[in-house]
Amino acid sequence: MFFHRQELQFKASPEQPDAVYARKLQEVLGGQYGEITVAMQYMFQGWNMHVPGKYRDLVFGIGSEEFGHVEMLATMIAQLLEKSPLGVTDEAVQADPTVAAVVGGTDVQHAIVAGAGARPVDSMGNPWQGAYITASGNLLADFTSNANAEMQGRTQVARLYHMTDDHGVRELLSFLLARDTMHQNQWLAAAAELRENGVEQLPVPSSFPQDREQTDVSYQYLNFSDGQHASEGPWASGPTPDGNGEFSYHEGTTTSAPMPPPTRPDARFYGTTEA
Amino acid sequence: MFFHRQELQFKASPEQPDAVYARKLQEVLGGQYGEITVAMQYMFQGWNMHVPGKYRDLVFGIGSEEFGHVEMLATMIAQLLEKSPLGVTDEAVQADPTVAAVVGGTDVQHAIVAGAGARPVDSMGNPWQGAYITASGNLLADFTSNANAEMQGRTQVARLYHMTDDHGVRELLSFLLARDTMHQNQWLAAAAELRENGVEQLPVPSSFPQDREQTDVSYQYLNFSDGQHASEGPWASGPTPDGNGEFSYHEGTTTSAPMPPPTRPDARFYGTTEA
Amino acid sequence: MFFHRQELQFKASPEQPDAVYARKLQEVLGGQYGEITVAMQYMFQGWNMHVPGKYRDLVFGIGSEEFGHVEMLATMIAQLLEKSPLGVTDEAVQADPTVAAVVGGTDVQHAIVAGAGARPVDSMGNPWQGAYITASGNLLADFTSNANAEMQGRTQVARLYHMTDDHGVRELLSFLLARDTMHQNQWLAAAAELRENGVEQLPVPSSFPQDREQTDVSYQYLNFSDGQHASEGPWASGPTPDGNGEFSYHEGTTTSAPMPPPTRPDARFYGTTEA
Amino acid sequence: MFFHRQELQFKASPEQPDAVYARKLQEVLGGQYGEITVAMQYMFQGWNMHVPGKYRDLVFGIGSEEFGHVEMLATMIAQLLEKSPLGVTDEAVQADPTVAAVVGGTDVQHAIVAGAGARPVDSMGNPWQGAYITASGNLLADFTSNANAEMQGRTQVARLYHMTDDHGVRELLSFLLARDTMHQNQWLAAAAELRENGVEQLPVPSSFPQDREQTDVSYQYLNFSDGQHASEGPWASGPTPDGNGEFSYHEGTTTSAPMPPPTRPDARFYGTTEA
Amino acid sequence: MFFHRQELQFKASPEQPDAVYARKLQEVLGGQYGEITVAMQYMFQGWNMHVPGKYRDLVFGIGSEEFGHVEMLATMIAQLLEKSPLGVTDEAVQADPTVAAVVGGTDVQHAIVAGAGARPVDSMGNPWQGAYITASGNLLADFTSNANAEMQGRTQVARLYHMTDDHGVRELLSFLLARDTMHQNQWLAAAAELRENGVEQLPVPSSFPQDREQTDVSYQYLNFSDGQHASEGPWASGPTPDGNGEFSYHEGTTTSAPMPPPTRPDARFYGTTEA
Amino acid sequence: MFFHRQELQFKASPEQPDAVYARKLQEVLGGQYGEITVAMQYMFQGWNMHVPGKYRDLVFGIGSEEFGHVEMLATMIAQLLEKSPLGVTDEAVQADPTVAAVVGGTDVQHAIVAGAGARPVDSMGNPWQGAYITASGNLLADFTSNANAEMQGRTQVARLYHMTDDHGVRELLSFLLARDTMHQNQWLAAAAELRENGVEQLPVPSSFPQDREQTDVSYQYLNFSDGQHASEGPWASGPTPDGNGEFSYHEGTTTSAPMPPPTRPDARFYGTTEA
Repeated sequence: MFFHRQELQFKASPEQPDAVYARKLQEVLGGQYGEITVAMQYMFQGWNMHVPGKYRDLVFGIGSEEFGHVEMLATMIAQLLEKSPLGVTDEAVQADPTVAAVVGGTDVQHAIVAGAGARPVDSMGNPWQGAYITASGNLLADFTSNANAEMQGRTQVARLYHMTDDHGVRELLSFLLARDTMHQNQWLAAAAELRENGVEQLPVPSSFPQDREQTDVSYQYLNFSDGQHASEGPWASGPTPDGNGEFSYHEGTTTSAPMPPPTRPDARFYGTTEA
Repeated sequence: MFFHRQELQFKASPEQPDAVYARKLQEVLGGQYGEITVAMQYMFQGWNMHVPGKYRDLVFGIGSEEFGHVEMLATMIAQLLEKSPLGVTDEAVQADPTVAAVVGGTDVQHAIVAGAGARPVDSMGNPWQGAYITASGNLLADFTSNANAEMQGRTQVARLYHMTDDHGVRELLSFLLARDTMHQNQWLAAAAELRENGVEQLPVPSSFPQDREQTDVSYQYLNFSDGQHASEGPWASGPTPDGNGEFSYHEGTTTSAPMPPPTRPDARFYGTTEA
Repeated sequence: MFFHRQELQFKASPEQPDAVYARKLQEVLGGQYGEITVAMQYMFQGWNMHVPGKYRDLVFGIGSEEFGHVEMLATMIAQLLEKSPLGVTDEAVQADPTVAAVVGGTDVQHAIVAGAGARPVDSMGNPWQGAYITASGNLLADFTSNANAEMQGRTQVARLYHMTDDHGVRELLSFLLARDTMHQNQWLAAAAELRENGVEQLPVPSSFPQDREQTDVSYQYLNFSDGQHASEGPWASGPTPDGNGEFSYHEGTTTSAPMPPPTRPDARFYGTTEA
Repeated sequence: MFFHRQELQFKASPEQPDAVYARKLQEVLGGQYGEITVAMQYMFQGWNMHVPGKYRDLVFGIGSEEFGHVEMLATMIAQLLEKSPLGVTDEAVQADPTVAAVVGGTDVQHAIVAGAGARPVDSMGNPWQGAYITASGNLLADFTSNANAEMQGRTQVARLYHMTDDHGVRELLSFLLARDTMHQNQWLAAAAELRENGVEQLPVPSSFPQDREQTDVSYQYLNFSDGQHASEGPWASGPTPDGNGEFSYHEGTTTSAPMPPPTRPDARFYGTTEA
Repeated sequence: MFFHRQELQFKASPEQPDAVYARKLQEVLGGQYGEITVAMQYMFQGWNMHVPGKYRDLVFGIGSEEFGHVEMLATMIAQLLEKSPLGVTDEAVQADPTVAAVVGGTDVQHAIVAGAGARPVDSMGNPWQGAYITASGNLLADFTSNANAEMQGRTQVARLYHMTDDHGVRELLSFLLARDTMHQNQWLAAAAELRENGVEQLPVPSSFPQDREQTDVSYQYLNFSDGQHASEGPWASGPTPDGNGEFSYHEGTTTSAPMPPPTRPDARFYGTTEA
Repeated sequence: MFFHRQELQFKASPEQPDAVYARKLQEVLGGQYGEITVAMQYMFQGWNMHVPGKYRDLVFGIGSEEFGHVEMLATMIAQLLEKSPLGVTDEAVQADPTVAAVVGGTDVQHAIVAGAGARPVDSMGNPWQGAYITASGNLLADFTSNANAEMQGRTQVARLYHMTDDHGVRELLSFLLARDTMHQNQWLAAAAELRENGVEQLPVPSSFPQDREQTDVSYQYLNFSDGQHASEGPWASGPTPDGNGEFSYHEGTTTSAPMPPPTRPDARFYGTTEA
């Protein structure tokens, strides 16, 4: 169960209206790596989890915070839109190229659909979708996904920080940046602990018997491009992070097989076949 | 430029037709973490990369291999469909519940749309989409995304391994499992090297001046759920993975702000307002 | 069957080209609540309806009109685009910030994809989709959906009315506003009649035996937020609109159950489990 | 802010595993009218609202409850999947047509992607999307949308009730049915109050000056189909629900205009034109 | 304007209910090449057309017929669903593997969402979308698109013909096959006439001055695969269909350029760069 | 298998940065008819093909080239973005309407998500999707689809040619135009050969026994619009392109059937029925 408190975790009010910026801010609300994504991702990981205790408490504890971040961003966006020119203007002003430039940079559905309100979409207007989230039940895989989400998210917020000089907006972003710092650290700490405790190890999923894989290619770097420097990385020689092997470097493939002949399905599929 | 060789990296022929399994295999061809995703993700990372040399060679070298994996899976799927009952059958057979059960479990577009061919979709028939990929230009973020993709992918292949006992299919899966093992190790090795060399560090993006974030909450674990065990993890106390702080644990939020009053935009948006 | 007459229901020509406005107008052509939605929604309701006679005549009668509204909007959009700068301009003009501002506000696919033509998309370029429509077979539910669609649609047209001062465009909008007025009234009248005649009543679906629901919570207002005014509305006390109960007000939940323990599925799903 | 309590609002455990039913239940979790939709819809209405007080408390109060319903359904689905045959079976069992029939009816991503967990998708596997929700800022329109959502939702739950005889599942459904009864009544009560208090009236949006619409067609029923019974309804004669007019009935259109000539845009769009 | 007549162009009633087949039939109603696609495609081509007269009459004349085909298919699907087991059954029947097999093969939203009605989706449940249609304003391109749509459509109907032995269904399909035959012929005849009359020629768009293209590669077959037979086709030697050149065959590319160095955008995008 | 060479097929560097143009160029990279579409379409046609030899060599040979075109466009886009104002600017510059106009016309995800990099989306930001491609197994249908794709693609490139005067961009476009010229010719030559050799003929699929279609309407032009000129085309009289018939012209339909009565499914679907 969720209980809502009509208070925000942090101030979320701009100094000035700015509809163009409101549109950009949609990215971290409703984009691939926006707050809806992390909120939903962590909660679904909790609902799908197979272990009780601290890991489940962890995803529930953070997932719920993230819903509050959705709220802060939606609240900020509504205020950025409140007094902005959104195309509903006096005739005289409409011809002003500055206004035209501003309106051209907005999410026009902010005005037409939401009446100067926030929307569950990204900065190009694509609706948020369930296909953004990851909840596989394998915790090492999922915590790595979470770490990535927080890294992508913090990178986007950092970019957005330089796209405004509004003090109120920047304050909110500085809060989100800090929480993303925390969450990056947290997921990496949790992932490391899984490996240290042997709960889950590399390669993921570690309980799959590795002798069932084609082990001769398990640690081969196969270079399918003609770059000359790929062999210089730590992925091309030396011990592997999973501790089970030694990297080796190869140009192209070390295995190959003839392409099977074309299929000849039932004639009633009306595919074209040879005479 | 890409050059195609009409040869596969590994055998990709089933012993038996199996249209239901062909549908399942679509997941690792055209799903969120299927081979199209990793192929496109790595190539876009290369095209968007800001450093020449080994990192770009790395993503190009592996991205191109992954297009070959798309080909192996598509080839396998077409063969699994080749002689399967796909609903195009003699009248007598149609009434057979076993056949009905099989046909019920297939991707019916395999038959109706592709004429017993593979499709760029996942196992539930959702088309592959560009929104699955990640290429931010920040290499630590992106390599973490890549590690996650290979972990999710290997987990899915491991599950699919137990959904068939066809020796030919399992051989292909054993090859894909091995390559996923390699690629997990490789991306983690590459990510570790970025950190070790100081090219990119935690928190990502590390070149953003951390003093601009709200540092008092940068390392606080805030528990927005009532789980009693969240405080027991390495994310709640001790040094942080980025080496910049010390975790602390808190019930609920350590900050709060009043919710700003509702917005009152231009009346010509026709939102409902107070009398 | 549908027969097309090469005549419009109303004038649909602008005084001036305006590509930015053409893009905005796409919302009521191809958006969630655009004319394609209502046209398709009403026709599918007719095809799925289980009663002959006046209700089916009603949805068919209006659905067909709505296809004509799609046509009026598409025609208008093509004319708004006809002489607009769409980025295909002389070099000198390209550098003009006013022109840049205009082009920046357009749907660039209007130019690149449709060659100055209308498209089946909304004002942010999202393609129209079948997931927008509702046709459940339950007429009280569906007519309520229709009333909502006409309310949202008229609100959007009213907003668009203030985003232009082109007399030709405003004339078309004034026509659409009037038809939306009619259709709001009509669906509410039809919904009211269903209830009065006892064809369908509240709660929808009324033929489901209400004693099979958990009746103790059927009329409880449960407040999961901390707003102090929720109890002041007609939803918190007094008789319920369905005539079957009395509202009561409660802070939080009146029921609860322990969360079941985490699931432990087959190990071959490779989810992480306890040691 | 949202606070999560690790308790459910109601029991959500099945008597028996049933993966086919788990897939069906996804509809009311992640479908067009599932619980994610209403949770997100009500919260966005709150964040976009222009009036403080009881209406905002209302949407926040119920929106938060709905997130708890998402949780109950996800929890139920995970348990329905826990011991089900999901295709990961011994070879002998695989050939059993009954098992094949069951597996054919499942969401195969439940197994392959989520490892026997719930997903943010509908019963056909389409990801939940932000385009499902409505939050226009006009309360009469939005509360009508809410009433429709609860009607569609309760209809779907009623259908699902007859697709299982599992006592545990039916108990949860009986609870959801009751809450949908409450919410239908509540939104209709709230919509009625808006009209009674004159906060918002028909036609929506009521503050748009009706004399700017083409009033001669504001109350005309225009029949674009050849059904003979459309004239018999309360939408074809008598006073209109908004109290502003009188319905009249007409075959076909009462207005028309010639279709404007085809457009002739800039030749550099390379559309085909006359010689 | 469109006028609807409550009559079908052809009989559209099955002999027997068949929910599995109803789901398959959705492909040609709401799929990529279903009837909604051609109806919408032809109408949008008309609205976007730049020439009056016979070509516009042609697309309007056929587009309107196609909406009637949508209706026939929706009507057929509703009847196929009418008496089918859709999961709403008595308990005893539920356990029957034959029934389970049937239900497993259905579109479960037919039952849960539409109450045994048709939906605007394809056979895998993906909603129809505006991105399926083509209306560029260039008639030779668009009529070629139309010819393709009718070829794909007729191929799908032919496949569906063999997936049922219901006489009523087959009769409807035999009608659709005939109309697809007509429409293939018609679009090819229209495309040929455009070329003969010089209204539009190859290469499309023919009014683009061909001397602005890199003419040395305009008629070179460049083989980027290692297939040995590509040189044997009429695309590798001899005169070109546009009458402007002569095909030549080449292994790999005849041109190349060094890959430009990686970009180095503003540091405030926080992409990883060299030390 | 695919091998990547770090060289481009043609120069792909602009003279000047131009973020607005970069966004437009996304259309031919990731749009419905962009290079990802043709690359994937041709490869899937190869993997699904039922004939060995020259046709398969053809699709593989060209499909692989198209992946190289994706690369050229992605590389060009990254360079167009490299030094552009993307909203990350000094405060002073931000207020400049010219800059605002430019930023307003960009794909803001280029900056926020990709850090000045290319994305797998179209010019309005819609992600590329697998639903764009066609690979039916019927070669005459598929080659017609390919010819259309190259016609639409060349038309879009021609339009884009006039939206810039950057010499570097125009050079790349002139190369793409030339290759589209080749590919149009090639697919038409291949389609013609299929018909000449009798491998596949009209109507597609030609192996379906035409006596099973409703032959009386196979060559009738039925005009469902009131255009007077439709009868004047070569589709209304004279021999048909397939050589099997003679066109005839008819106003409206030559066949009709009564609409079947509404369906009455099981009451437990809770659709509204008559009293």
